[in-house]
Amino acid sequence: MQKNIQVCLTPALISLYDLSNSIVVVIDIFRATSSICYGIENGAEAIIPVATVDECRNYGRGCLLAAERDGKVVEGFDFGNSPFSYTAEKVAGKTIVLTTTNGTHAINESKKTAYQVIIGSFLNLDAVCDYLKAAQKDVVLLCAGWKNKFNLEDTLFAGAVVHQLKGEDYFLDDSSTAAEDLYLLAKDDLKAYTGKTSHSERLKNLGIEKDIEFCLNVNTTQSIPVLKGDKLVRLG
Amino acid sequence: MQKNIQVCLTPALISLYDLSNSIVVVIDIFRATSSICYGIENGAEAIIPVATVDECRNYGRGCLLAAERDGKVVEGFDFGNSPFSYTAEKVAGKTIVLTTTNGTHAINESKKTAYQVIIGSFLNLDAVCDYLKAAQKDVVLLCAGWKNKFNLEDTLFAGAVVHQLKGEDYFLDDSSTAAEDLYLLAKDDLKAYTGKTSHSERLKNLGIEKDIEFCLNVNTTQSIPVLKGDKLVRLG
Repeated sequence: MQKNIQVCLTPALISLYDLSNSIVVVIDIFRATSSICYGIENGAEAIIPVATVDECRNYGRGCLLAAERDGKVVEGFDFGNSPFSYTAEKVAGKTIVLTTTNGTHAINESKKTAYQVIIGSFLNLDAVCDYLKAAQKDVVLLCAGWKNKFNLEDTLFAGAVVHQLKGEDYFLDDSSTAAEDLYLLAKDDLKAYTGKTSHSERLKNLGIEKDIEFCLNVNTTQSIPVLKGDKLVRLG
Repeated sequence: MQKNIQVCLTPALISLYDLSNSIVVVIDIFRATSSICYGIENGAEAIIPVATVDECRNYGRGCLLAAERDGKVVEGFDFGNSPFSYTAEKVAGKTIVLTTTNGTHAINESKKTAYQVIIGSFLNLDAVCDYLKAAQKDVVLLCAGWKNKFNLEDTLFAGAVVHQLKGEDYFLDDSSTAAEDLYLLAKDDLKAYTGKTSHSERLKNLGIEKDIEFCLNVNTTQSIPVLKGDKLVRLG
């Protein structure tokens, strides 16, 4: 049976999509979903995405509290969304409460109606694609973007997924076609291509170039974070 | 002084942009803005974009009434948005009241706050670019899309404009970069590339392939439709 792949280029458009029979892959490459994939791979028990800094602050003791706004750790918090804060030594066995500028917003927008919400990044690209192929569901690739606007790096990852899935009897919408073509332009040097983005320039100014490089590693993790209730946990 | 080019990929995102110092170029390649450019070139006195079919129907006698929904002429109307309805013999000296699925919505969304609203299509590509270069304003390229979702052909035209302007000290946002790269992939055979789109498939089913070919002609007209009050008229 033919299934659909659609790329939703920003969370501001998610209400246009019927998610009831879709697996939604939330994508925030720089850096929330890369860090979530890395943290779950490294044994974090759960990551709880929340919308606001206050909600994060009010969470019970025993959790690690992570808050990022405009690329910086919010004052008074254990850490933000740098992947280097999500090593096994820091997160194994822990529950992390996380709020970010774009990524957690996208997760919360999609969870209202989706069949299932999973988390994707270049780190777990093949794992995500293999899971989607086996699941035989419609797919919505939800780019977190930047403050509800389009960004390149999330779209490139969406294109990488489209590229792996398109041989499998999916119908592609226009944004899937565009995302795949952009990915094919970029794939041989993701770092150079994403260096063209306005967001990358902003991240460089924050002195987090090592984070950016880390988030462009492909297939370094195997686990897929999946939303169960309000928590992201390891699938399967 | 550095100026900005931004591509707004669908009208649903227009509220995210500050338009007060921007020239907004509304783009609905298949077929509203192509037909508007052709009609104004052919001597139409004015084209009045309205939101609803009822609003169109209630306009006074003496106007041509044009209404399209889902690619078809609405029953009881003189014509829809096929460019072949906008020849000199049909529209010279006339005022046309027009409502379409996507294009007129985009015009009405942007006119609320924009410094100026003009109409672009492949037909008047160079004329639009020359005007923008001379104007020294920020530019927002507003793609009408399809029912508030992204579409390829409008994005390609946005990319064509970005490509001409980028040497002129503009700052590009991520969607401008993406649009330009897609245009560079497509430019040598626009027809083949737009044949990949879901919208093109829909238009084929409507039997309007000649319209599609016509809308991909580049630089066949010189005039720029501009919004004055509620009317699109010839600029200058």
